[in-house]
Amino acid sequence: MSIDVESMAGLDLQVRPQPVGIAVVGAGYWGPNLVRNVVQSAATRLIAVVDRDVDRARSVAGAFTGVRATSDLAAVLADPSVEAVAVATPAGSHLEVASAAIAAGKHVLVEKPLAAGYADGLALVEAARARGVVLMCDHTYCYTPAVRRIRELVRGGVLGDIQFIDSVRVNLGLVQRDVNVFWDLAPHDLSILDFILPEGVWPVAVSAQGADPIGAGQACVGYLSLRFPDDVIAQVQVNWMSPVKVRMTTIGGSKRTLVWDDLNPAQRISVYDRGVDLADPADLGADDRRQAIVSYRSGDMVAPALPEREALQGVLAEFTDCIRTGRTPVTDGWSGLRVLDILEAASRSLEFAGAVVPLRASDRGEGR
Amino acid sequence: MSIDVESMAGLDLQVRPQPVGIAVVGAGYWGPNLVRNVVQSAATRLIAVVDRDVDRARSVAGAFTGVRATSDLAAVLADPSVEAVAVATPAGSHLEVASAAIAAGKHVLVEKPLAAGYADGLALVEAARARGVVLMCDHTYCYTPAVRRIRELVRGGVLGDIQFIDSVRVNLGLVQRDVNVFWDLAPHDLSILDFILPEGVWPVAVSAQGADPIGAGQACVGYLSLRFPDDVIAQVQVNWMSPVKVRMTTIGGSKRTLVWDDLNPAQRISVYDRGVDLADPADLGADDRRQAIVSYRSGDMVAPALPEREALQGVLAEFTDCIRTGRTPVTDGWSGLRVLDILEAASRSLEFAGAVVPLRASDRGEGR
Amino acid sequence: MSIDVESMAGLDLQVRPQPVGIAVVGAGYWGPNLVRNVVQSAATRLIAVVDRDVDRARSVAGAFTGVRATSDLAAVLADPSVEAVAVATPAGSHLEVASAAIAAGKHVLVEKPLAAGYADGLALVEAARARGVVLMCDHTYCYTPAVRRIRELVRGGVLGDIQFIDSVRVNLGLVQRDVNVFWDLAPHDLSILDFILPEGVWPVAVSAQGADPIGAGQACVGYLSLRFPDDVIAQVQVNWMSPVKVRMTTIGGSKRTLVWDDLNPAQRISVYDRGVDLADPADLGADDRRQAIVSYRSGDMVAPALPEREALQGVLAEFTDCIRTGRTPVTDGWSGLRVLDILEAASRSLEFAGAVVPLRASDRGEGR
Amino acid sequence: MSIDVESMAGLDLQVRPQPVGIAVVGAGYWGPNLVRNVVQSAATRLIAVVDRDVDRARSVAGAFTGVRATSDLAAVLADPSVEAVAVATPAGSHLEVASAAIAAGKHVLVEKPLAAGYADGLALVEAARARGVVLMCDHTYCYTPAVRRIRELVRGGVLGDIQFIDSVRVNLGLVQRDVNVFWDLAPHDLSILDFILPEGVWPVAVSAQGADPIGAGQACVGYLSLRFPDDVIAQVQVNWMSPVKVRMTTIGGSKRTLVWDDLNPAQRISVYDRGVDLADPADLGADDRRQAIVSYRSGDMVAPALPEREALQGVLAEFTDCIRTGRTPVTDGWSGLRVLDILEAASRSLEFAGAVVPLRASDRGEGR
Repeated sequence: MSIDVESMAGLDLQVRPQPVGIAVVGAGYWGPNLVRNVVQSAATRLIAVVDRDVDRARSVAGAFTGVRATSDLAAVLADPSVEAVAVATPAGSHLEVASAAIAAGKHVLVEKPLAAGYADGLALVEAARARGVVLMCDHTYCYTPAVRRIRELVRGGVLGDIQFIDSVRVNLGLVQRDVNVFWDLAPHDLSILDFILPEGVWPVAVSAQGADPIGAGQACVGYLSLRFPDDVIAQVQVNWMSPVKVRMTTIGGSKRTLVWDDLNPAQRISVYDRGVDLADPADLGADDRRQAIVSYRSGDMVAPALPEREALQGVLAEFTDCIRTGRTPVTDGWSGLRVLDILEAASRSLEFAGAVVPLRASDRGEGR
Repeated sequence: MSIDVESMAGLDLQVRPQPVGIAVVGAGYWGPNLVRNVVQSAATRLIAVVDRDVDRARSVAGAFTGVRATSDLAAVLADPSVEAVAVATPAGSHLEVASAAIAAGKHVLVEKPLAAGYADGLALVEAARARGVVLMCDHTYCYTPAVRRIRELVRGGVLGDIQFIDSVRVNLGLVQRDVNVFWDLAPHDLSILDFILPEGVWPVAVSAQGADPIGAGQACVGYLSLRFPDDVIAQVQVNWMSPVKVRMTTIGGSKRTLVWDDLNPAQRISVYDRGVDLADPADLGADDRRQAIVSYRSGDMVAPALPEREALQGVLAEFTDCIRTGRTPVTDGWSGLRVLDILEAASRSLEFAGAVVPLRASDRGEGR
Repeated sequence: MSIDVESMAGLDLQVRPQPVGIAVVGAGYWGPNLVRNVVQSAATRLIAVVDRDVDRARSVAGAFTGVRATSDLAAVLADPSVEAVAVATPAGSHLEVASAAIAAGKHVLVEKPLAAGYADGLALVEAARARGVVLMCDHTYCYTPAVRRIRELVRGGVLGDIQFIDSVRVNLGLVQRDVNVFWDLAPHDLSILDFILPEGVWPVAVSAQGADPIGAGQACVGYLSLRFPDDVIAQVQVNWMSPVKVRMTTIGGSKRTLVWDDLNPAQRISVYDRGVDLADPADLGADDRRQAIVSYRSGDMVAPALPEREALQGVLAEFTDCIRTGRTPVTDGWSGLRVLDILEAASRSLEFAGAVVPLRASDRGEGR
Repeated sequence: MSIDVESMAGLDLQVRPQPVGIAVVGAGYWGPNLVRNVVQSAATRLIAVVDRDVDRARSVAGAFTGVRATSDLAAVLADPSVEAVAVATPAGSHLEVASAAIAAGKHVLVEKPLAAGYADGLALVEAARARGVVLMCDHTYCYTPAVRRIRELVRGGVLGDIQFIDSVRVNLGLVQRDVNVFWDLAPHDLSILDFILPEGVWPVAVSAQGADPIGAGQACVGYLSLRFPDDVIAQVQVNWMSPVKVRMTTIGGSKRTLVWDDLNPAQRISVYDRGVDLADPADLGADDRRQAIVSYRSGDMVAPALPEREALQGVLAEFTDCIRTGRTPVTDGWSGLRVLDILEAASRSLEFAGAVVPLRASDRGEGR
């Protein structure tokens, strides 16, 4: 697959096609954001808000004229003006809701994670392929100006070969009952890695360390280690108990190293022309390599200018463009599966005290 | 043992005893700092600088009148005016140099790490005990005003029970040939943990992930995970390849969480009265705990004022006070052994792909 | 007057009175924010949006059912369901719009600055008093949690006597045609000073330096110096040409100094127990004072926890509470006049190359 | 004059000439730094340390073999091995000490400010010219890698035309008895401006606001406004009472804006390709200019890499090179005079409540 950021929709829809009629399912935490963006976008039209709690659906939909608020998903799926469904329910119900929508011939946008497990996610991917509808993951961060730019820089070779990645996402977060901190926070980091890394660069194994020092019944502090070929390592740190909020990702490359500090709006991305080079490692035998001379680069740092743009508008632009053109979304079902693959491996590693757990080799699918 | 920071010397030496005559062995990276501080301190007198390269010894000693510069360690050890030896040679020669000094009845201050391995370190500890001389580790950070204050706060119960620790020490560092990034950088973090944690709080097992993406022949990127009882976790991150220098340690406690940012001189320590509490976990059965209600504290942050003080002056004050009084140093040989124990376990874990390696239970010694 | 923050409404309206029917006049930059907050607040009901450009009014009002969008202000003022008018037009039309609203017996909330000049503002204050309606300035910052807390700390004596104030508000801002950078940005700083300073602490004279290095026809860079009794000084720096956004205010006191960094959400307020004290200046004669010994305090810093709260909700709560109870708003017309007094003096100072211009003594009014 | 940074000495002295014999006069605050650097530099040889307090002189000189410590300046000036004198006494004695040295045919390096007043400084400049010796100001900041780079960027046209400058130097500083905060701190900012600004860009008038809210007998808080031709403005803010240390200078240009944050070692200099442009102001009549369209640039930010280098080594390199070659130092006596000119004008402005005081037009001398 060779989809470039440049070909991603949403920046230059010239001829405005008919808006896509959308129902948002789930009026909890994320649903209202989807509703607001579907209303604002010229490419979409909000038809209905669905929630088990019809009052909640109504309060989210209510301010907007003519939008249906209901708890009756089946009725909404039977409505031909609904072309697409955005699923913002808890992950445990993604399979049921999205399957029903796919069966009804609707295009589907699913909040992260794609499903409660890999098998469920795979079922959705295959059902969507069989039915010929678009299945897209709402990996929102991938549609921020910062992450789009990081993708360009990484895949465009500006950083050189990737050598290490360190990603920190910690906060005084909402401790959850049924989902540990990996499943809650790491999907962001993993979907970003999936989005920015070049073709063929993907971890082969995972190990995880977690702790629940407050007795919450779930890991509240977690470290996820990803092993790549060529002795490349990535780590994702997640924590619900940090009084300080940190969202910082460092991507070390053979040419440059990029630091993304998402909480520094004045300088989100810094690209450092600094690093360590091994002098001619290719020319040396294995024993000589230990004696090889290391050199250091110490060049300028560049912080690229970034436009302001709400990520969910980009999500909807990509979704509607794929619906209208038949194109595969950049964050398609396979990307959601790759995230689930790592999350399941992390859970298995946690069960076995941090054992290294290999990832499924075969499901890189069409996406990478 | 119950040595308090308050009883540490160096702040209030009232009656000035006779200065301790000191020879500094090793005139490389760290030796000149020792030399400068031995000269400046009223409690010490610099007698000699020893280095295999006598010119280097002379250039370090030379500016100061009457200091001997030599490559002849034996001669220096035979000099009765030399009461103590500060060893700043590479770790590989610590056993040889320090053993000779102990055998000559000199008190010994050893640069971190104490020795090239646990067995060597233990030999030094036992030799010093048998000979009745002071053996002290130059765990310099422990003598900074910031770490002294952290020790007071942690051991004084201000943070409550320790729940998690995250320590980051990354930099564009000097890639070394014979020592990996764990052995180079983690001794700082580990000696600090040893210094600040309360009696009885110590890890029981270790796992480590490392990578050498540039082919340096040593891990250049490392993650060290420390498992404590009660599902407490600590992680130490070390990296020679980061273009950005970070030295930050977060210590999460049941009452408060402390963040130490050593590169922010205006606010090195921040103590947050923010966190997550589990509502009455003790009152609940195991199954009920998953349903327990979590509550959040959101109080003020306090950044304590810290005095300015050069850490090496505190090291020398502790060393000379222990020599004069017979007291055991706060950073004694056992503390150096505990650091070596973790470093060796980390190396074993690296060999076995991140396997969990238990620590020696018995050698907490007298120190903890 | 002795209104405390604690008595400010909006935090604890227990018995919900009838919502206040509001028309928002001006659908440009600020109007949509007012509209959104009027819709969200339970204490207000949006009746109409008025703008010369009726399409703009409609687009702002349109999404909300049953809100009238019109360019006919007179018709709206004739509507008895409109109890209050929020004026968000350019300052040049504040007099006309607000006067008409007052004449129609409506309570009026006016965007800063209160009017295009002091005389116009005074006319509004007097008209509102004569007609018995509430006239309130939308000094939005005063209703942020940070500024409310600063007021408590300053007026509560935590800082001691105020010694100096430095306020910086710079940005790559919208260069305006008819209003210079002082009139555009300084009303924020000045209304905040008016809000937080204790009774009786107010400048007596002003001088200003401005520059228009790009030939915009207006000062784009400005420094405003405020002279208080007792050799206290305040400075407000405003700049439309700074590539870096800074919003930082330092308030130096005899006991503590407060730094408010509004762009650091993790630590907006820092209260430093650091400073310079003169040893017993009161005990010394004038000549001796030069020889007096200065001492330094170096205590902890405290960053108080702040709640999250949208400021405009606080504005509306104060406005509606004053309407229902007859109370005078904390940011009443007099506070707006005091801001205009300084702005006019600044303009005069600019005309005369930075000459010191005294402020009107008499119009501290009831407010201070 | 057309001295480029590139031609400044100290980076590439190839053929090592005979070291310059130097006497340091004044062993107080700054003297020991000079002593240490004179000892370290291969281009200089420390002959003597002179201080009224001979014990202080000895303690500063004492550690170094063969350096004379004395209170007898005349004897030192009579010593032919002393080729040059570095004056680090209080400003009040600069005239006396430096005049004596010049009369004795010694080259002179004077700590900032050059003298206690303009007339004194001029006397030194003329005496040095008459005697044919080098007179150099120790404007230390000008020899830091950051300020050297800023000079290159500003004088090289990278910023375009200078539009505004804002320089902040605040701290919990040493309140002084006989010198106000302008004379204590502003020489740094003013000597830097003198160093970095292009030929012909220099202020024509000054106004100052100061306050002494603690009754120290001297202004402790100060704002210095510098007026340039073409409606360009600079401000220097100095304050001894700030609990937070800030050393930040913003230089706004027509092409780019530079921010120098000297307390951020990881990113001291940031060059922003962001700003405001006026559309074709040259093509428009005066009245039309108010209607002119402003456009905004929003490009990348670049933080140039800077070498590490102790500034005083650069000072000594420049001094000794000028002694050996007869070249005029970049920070010659005229640069010191320009600083004094502004400081005296600031003092006069303070006396007259912030009145605008013109600078001496004629004394730009050879330096600019």
